[in-house]
Amino acid sequence: MKSMEEKILKEGKVLPGGILKVGNFLNQQIDTAFLKEIGDEIARLFAGEEITKIMTIESSGIAIAAAAGMEMGIPVIFAKKHKTSNVDGEVLSTKIHSFTHDSDYDAVISRDYLKEGDSVLLVDDFLASGNALDGLIDLCEFAGANVAGVAVAIEKKFQGGGDKLRVRGVRVEPLACVEKMTDSEIMFAEDRR
Amino acid sequence: MKSMEEKILKEGKVLPGGILKVGNFLNQQIDTAFLKEIGDEIARLFAGEEITKIMTIESSGIAIAAAAGMEMGIPVIFAKKHKTSNVDGEVLSTKIHSFTHDSDYDAVISRDYLKEGDSVLLVDDFLASGNALDGLIDLCEFAGANVAGVAVAIEKKFQGGGDKLRVRGVRVEPLACVEKMTDSEIMFAEDRR
Repeated sequence: MKSMEEKILKEGKVLPGGILKVGNFLNQQIDTAFLKEIGDEIARLFAGEEITKIMTIESSGIAIAAAAGMEMGIPVIFAKKHKTSNVDGEVLSTKIHSFTHDSDYDAVISRDYLKEGDSVLLVDDFLASGNALDGLIDLCEFAGANVAGVAVAIEKKFQGGGDKLRVRGVRVEPLACVEKMTDSEIMFAEDRR
Repeated sequence: MKSMEEKILKEGKVLPGGILKVGNFLNQQIDTAFLKEIGDEIARLFAGEEITKIMTIESSGIAIAAAAGMEMGIPVIFAKKHKTSNVDGEVLSTKIHSFTHDSDYDAVISRDYLKEGDSVLLVDDFLASGNALDGLIDLCEFAGANVAGVAVAIEKKFQGGGDKLRVRGVRVEPLACVEKMTDSEIMFAEDRR
């Protein structure tokens, strides 16, 4: 998605530690005209797939999932993050390690909203190490649901999470795919242009 | 909003402790066709106001704020919740007490996205005691921003938060206003019908 690459080059900032800050338009302040474009593009990419749910994890993926869901006419569900496990019979739960915060948390979703027979499109703002998406795939497996694919606004390919998912046979569609970042330059993967 | 009342009556559940569960369509699983209606209705209600930002707090308000923002063509910002204070020069922060979890948390937003001169529409899924919205109003005041009004999907009027805000002169627009709840019945405020 050309406009995502342009937006990153124009408004994104590279911070120490391989962090790409896009808070200006994607995940702290949301450019809603651009959000609509994102939703449209995800709908276009997965138009041929049979999808029953769009799933994300709080918080930064919710607006993107909602935009895609409104365009596709599909319900959105999101896993909640808990620092401590509070699992009872009614929820599905898995542990996720956050590199950003160097801590573990539980991703939890009610069994009522993720079921056997569901075909799920996973959506998030970033795909870096892939831990959060691995966790969402776990939850789908626990529920007996199919993972139809993954759509992310930005993949940081150099952190390996996207390719790890592709090796497992998951269809991964980044709207922009960052191959390499330095303090002064952001390079996108050629095959995504 | 008649359809919000109907949806609550049809799909909502009253749980012990004055909790109205609407996870089936509003805040765990999101009915995206209905979400679009919600966004349209908020846009209609505040069509006459000059608004520069829509603001919410993670996580349940984000989809609603995004839907309203897309319809109104206005950027959405959201405050993050932190269990511990980690304020530096670049953020605005205020303490909020959660009745649901009986604990305090900090609501934090970057100074970059909330500024003097902004006119802010606050959006959330629920308005009960009003503590979360009070916190968002604090953040607007710290920034020197104007509060143009409050739009919530559901006000639980019997918990008093909405009227507290109205007394302070804030325009509060619930899409459904619950006057009273028992285990077997949900009654809406007549003046909102």
